Amino acid sequence: MSDLALGQEMHDLCRDLFPICRSLTGEGFRQSLRMLQARFEPLAMHEVPSGTPAFDWTVPLEWNPRAAWIETPDGRRICDFATHNLHLLGYSEAVDAELSLEDLQPHLHSLPEQPDAIPYVTSYYSRRWGFCMRHREREALQPGRYRVHVDATLAPGVLNYGDALIPGDSPQEVLISTYLCHPSMANNELSGPVVSLYLARWLAALPRRRYSYRLVIVPETIGAIVYLSRHLAKLRERVVAGYVVTCVGDERAHSFLPSRRGGTLADRAALHVLGHLAPGFASYSFLDRGSDERQYCSPGADLPVASMMRTKYGCYPEYHTSLDDLQLVTPAGLAGGFEALQRAIECIEMDEVLQARQPCEPQLGKRGLYPTLSTKESGRQVQAMMDLLAYCDGSESLLQVADRIGQPLWTLRPTIEALKQHGLLDVVAGDLWR
Amino acid sequence: MSDLALGQEMHDLCRDLFPICRSLTGEGFRQSLRMLQARFEPLAMHEVPSGTPAFDWTVPLEWNPRAAWIETPDGRRICDFATHNLHLLGYSEAVDAELSLEDLQPHLHSLPEQPDAIPYVTSYYSRRWGFCMRHREREALQPGRYRVHVDATLAPGVLNYGDALIPGDSPQEVLISTYLCHPSMANNELSGPVVSLYLARWLAALPRRRYSYRLVIVPETIGAIVYLSRHLAKLRERVVAGYVVTCVGDERAHSFLPSRRGGTLADRAALHVLGHLAPGFASYSFLDRGSDERQYCSPGADLPVASMMRTKYGCYPEYHTSLDDLQLVTPAGLAGGFEALQRAIECIEMDEVLQARQPCEPQLGKRGLYPTLSTKESGRQVQAMMDLLAYCDGSESLLQVADRIGQPLWTLRPTIEALKQHGLLDVVAGDLWR
Amino acid sequence: MSDLALGQEMHDLCRDLFPICRSLTGEGFRQSLRMLQARFEPLAMHEVPSGTPAFDWTVPLEWNPRAAWIETPDGRRICDFATHNLHLLGYSEAVDAELSLEDLQPHLHSLPEQPDAIPYVTSYYSRRWGFCMRHREREALQPGRYRVHVDATLAPGVLNYGDALIPGDSPQEVLISTYLCHPSMANNELSGPVVSLYLARWLAALPRRRYSYRLVIVPETIGAIVYLSRHLAKLRERVVAGYVVTCVGDERAHSFLPSRRGGTLADRAALHVLGHLAPGFASYSFLDRGSDERQYCSPGADLPVASMMRTKYGCYPEYHTSLDDLQLVTPAGLAGGFEALQRAIECIEMDEVLQARQPCEPQLGKRGLYPTLSTKESGRQVQAMMDLLAYCDGSESLLQVADRIGQPLWTLRPTIEALKQHGLLDVVAGDLWR
Repeated sequence: MSDLALGQEMHDLCRDLFPICRSLTGEGFRQSLRMLQARFEPLAMHEVPSGTPAFDWTVPLEWNPRAAWIETPDGRRICDFATHNLHLLGYSEAVDAELSLEDLQPHLHSLPEQPDAIPYVTSYYSRRWGFCMRHREREALQPGRYRVHVDATLAPGVLNYGDALIPGDSPQEVLISTYLCHPSMANNELSGPVVSLYLARWLAALPRRRYSYRLVIVPETIGAIVYLSRHLAKLRERVVAGYVVTCVGDERAHSFLPSRRGGTLADRAALHVLGHLAPGFASYSFLDRGSDERQYCSPGADLPVASMMRTKYGCYPEYHTSLDDLQLVTPAGLAGGFEALQRAIECIEMDEVLQARQPCEPQLGKRGLYPTLSTKESGRQVQAMMDLLAYCDGSESLLQVADRIGQPLWTLRPTIEALKQHGLLDVVAGDLWR
Repeated sequence: MSDLALGQEMHDLCRDLFPICRSLTGEGFRQSLRMLQARFEPLAMHEVPSGTPAFDWTVPLEWNPRAAWIETPDGRRICDFATHNLHLLGYSEAVDAELSLEDLQPHLHSLPEQPDAIPYVTSYYSRRWGFCMRHREREALQPGRYRVHVDATLAPGVLNYGDALIPGDSPQEVLISTYLCHPSMANNELSGPVVSLYLARWLAALPRRRYSYRLVIVPETIGAIVYLSRHLAKLRERVVAGYVVTCVGDERAHSFLPSRRGGTLADRAALHVLGHLAPGFASYSFLDRGSDERQYCSPGADLPVASMMRTKYGCYPEYHTSLDDLQLVTPAGLAGGFEALQRAIECIEMDEVLQARQPCEPQLGKRGLYPTLSTKESGRQVQAMMDLLAYCDGSESLLQVADRIGQPLWTLRPTIEALKQHGLLDVVAGDLWR
Repeated sequence: MSDLALGQEMHDLCRDLFPICRSLTGEGFRQSLRMLQARFEPLAMHEVPSGTPAFDWTVPLEWNPRAAWIETPDGRRICDFATHNLHLLGYSEAVDAELSLEDLQPHLHSLPEQPDAIPYVTSYYSRRWGFCMRHREREALQPGRYRVHVDATLAPGVLNYGDALIPGDSPQEVLISTYLCHPSMANNELSGPVVSLYLARWLAALPRRRYSYRLVIVPETIGAIVYLSRHLAKLRERVVAGYVVTCVGDERAHSFLPSRRGGTLADRAALHVLGHLAPGFASYSFLDRGSDERQYCSPGADLPVASMMRTKYGCYPEYHTSLDDLQLVTPAGLAGGFEALQRAIECIEMDEVLQARQPCEPQLGKRGLYPTLSTKESGRQVQAMMDLLAYCDGSESLLQVADRIGQPLWTLRPTIEALKQHGLLDVVAGDLWR
């Protein structure tokens, strides 16, 4: 499939998922996850009852909104949940009341500096009700009696999450984690689960994988904590690299956020890929973190997890508003987000330790490794071959060698294969970094 | 006491000490040290007889000047020691003679490029007599017979030094070393012993100290060598950090001079403090050294001793002249020099290794650690809390963690205390750097 | 001998060697090597029969050209080997034929962008015949019948190389390797063997050497491979540093090309020397390699071999053309190339680990180490003395100490000798880097 066709297919899936009102818990999350399951059979759905402890936390009540609106003094319905699910404050409790504009105001949320955007606001851990609206509309509200109506349940239920293990030659795993708890927003977050799903499909279709791959789809923060509370020992033992996949759908930038201390295989693969694919990419500090790497990289978990994004959460004006939509996220943006992660995974798969076997430079000509037609491209190939033979000395793995010789590792694959086939490079070890 | 009140008090003490003619040895040194003892009772005075060997050196004769002047052909007294003690060459031998201007000239010292400054000149290790004067006056000298008179003794006696130990929880020590051998000059040197004395008073008044503190007041070079010759084994065993305190009284700059190889606790605390307190501070190399770190950091002693100064010796035009006076040194300058050292000591006291105890991020809200009022400042506090919890993983001490998260360590104290009290941070070790 | 006299003597030897037609094998190589033997008696000539295997390679047939020319339709002789030996393609097979200009063209080599230069072209490993000529002349060729004549043998014979061992106190060796397989070109290559020879003469004339020195003169690539195939185990055991000597005769630049991973004694000495001798020197990556370091630094050999050049091969327009002549290479250029390598060798000889013996700074005055006359130069010497005493602590060798204190190591020799004689510095170890 061409990159653009793939981008279009991912964009279509975003479009299908867009209208659903997701939250930490509830039917919207389950419905969305089922749509992903329909496209990737190994994906399993799990549930954890409300009140279950998870380290320092407790699984919250399940929230299911059905309807919500405000009726103005002149009888118009505004902030209708049926029109845009961002109108309802996340985890809003039920209410049905009439009150003055003055009393209503503390329950309204809008952005004076973005008067045409509906903001995304939640109140997971303190009970309240509220509505989010365009500031322009809010300013037009007239004094009078307003009726507010929220039909929602907040009751014991379950928290759901999905996961899948795509087995490889080794029980060691690469973690791909994403979240599915935001209502109608596209870059943050639909791009994340959709690109992750297509990465899983690509991986599962490969004839062979060196590593096993773990796809995890959770509600953000509490979901990652719950997941870690159930799988921490195993993850610490197995995970050699991982990525939090979020904000991978716009076309404005490529971005990198390292693991807590940096320098892990995940960090090195990401930096290698972005250095070639998107020179000048935006590079953040772990101090700028804001998603589930907060849990995966906490001192107690300390997993080698980094983030490769397009434009980072919090760094684009549409973030957490109704403007983060399917015009901001594009087929080309999704394809680019996918490619960066795919390349990083290819690098992780390829990153073995090789050793040249000849004491001096070998004679390439007698093995037919010298191109018969001498072009600029063939010259580059010969140079790459000689550089690989010079730096593959059993002391560094291919990612480091590729960095030394200034070549994208994935472009070296045919050369490396040829040198292996002719006995000029041998595998010393496949997992030097452990 | 406010910073400025403290600065004024230190300036007053400088003023009291200013007129005394100090040198490597003699009554001036003793009188000055007694004035410091009057303000800090634990300070002891020691004496070492002339001729005592100290490593490669020998304690010199004691020098006591009483009077010195030149009488001009027309009967005026110039270069009168009674007027300014810089007029007499340090360690000048006695003389009473009449000679021509031509024969006098080799005994005169002045600065053509600073014609209104009396230079500070000494001849500790080669016997001579001499006078220092303003170049403007020297040029006005008329031919004729001059009478020179120096009444001074250079005879077996003692070299004095002072020290005090302020005990802490640990026998490990922080060294505060300063020198007291310069006559009437203010930045180099009175600021040094005065700020050191007030640091000792502050430390002694603390309810508790993690480390013991050793205050050492010596004549420069020979005094440090004598001190090391008597205490080297103990100092090498106990000293975890130290500072040579000199040139800490002007307002022009903050300066740093590292230990011989850098990177010690003293260096790291100083760089941390100055990076926050005085961004753009002047940073010198150990090759620019010039005070007692020459001895403390020599390969045979190798103590972790750095220097935190205001404007460094040799780097301001008034240095080693009569212009280094109590206008150059100010209450604000002294207060700033004091604060930098005080902060560095606070950092050293705080620099323990902590470890977060929750496997993921803890829930701050249920512990009341989330601010009830959300302000910009409270946002910073929450961020600092999360960053501390992320980086305190038992592998680095707080100075390193504070550098990673970009916060002045001393401002984090209440946050760290709160996290400890709630069991979210535990002490792993208090002295990782040994 | 003055530098310039030495430069002139080296230039004269280049002039003597210039007309000889050298190649990988053959009489020209032997004749050239004999001329070097005449100036350095220990230099031995060795021979290896054609067909002898050398790792992945085989010693090629021996090539001996005698005459070569083209006769134009109007009876003129052009491309005459007797006029300039670059006219004949290196390793050209014999031919005697008449053919059209059209059929001749594929056998002609010229440089459109350098129309007055005869290019240097070879075909070692694929049989063909050909001529190299100025592009300006080539464009003037008229249609018609051309007669081509190459009288050359390509037959079993030998490959020759030269080597010499100049013994030192230690069996550990410094390798000086150069090549002698290029016909009439001066910077690349005659400067290499000539400067190497004079380095060997200088070394042999020293009263004493700490290391043994191995001079190796080979045909490039195949010669280095043959040499390694016969001596690898010994070289790996003994060689502590080495330089490939090439392109050391022009005046345009000083250049450095590191060993494969850099940081060896050879790299550090070269960087130290060039940093002082030629600030702003051209610094290349090992990726820019192109001479026998390709073999010496291959993973299987891994010798600590770097290159110190004037203008690097491939980086000047005259490279591999008839314009690389004895006007490009000058006495001053050769003297500068010689000096850089000589200084690097001096640094390698001096690079021991010293330790100061006094616990504090020693008293220089009582040992007469303080200059009696105080000048700017004597001040620098005292500073250098104190800095040496501060940094010689037994943990780093002199090259590192000299880098720390910012002084050229070779200028510190008298100071170091004086401090050793007075017992202030002791040798801890002479070969810390092994």
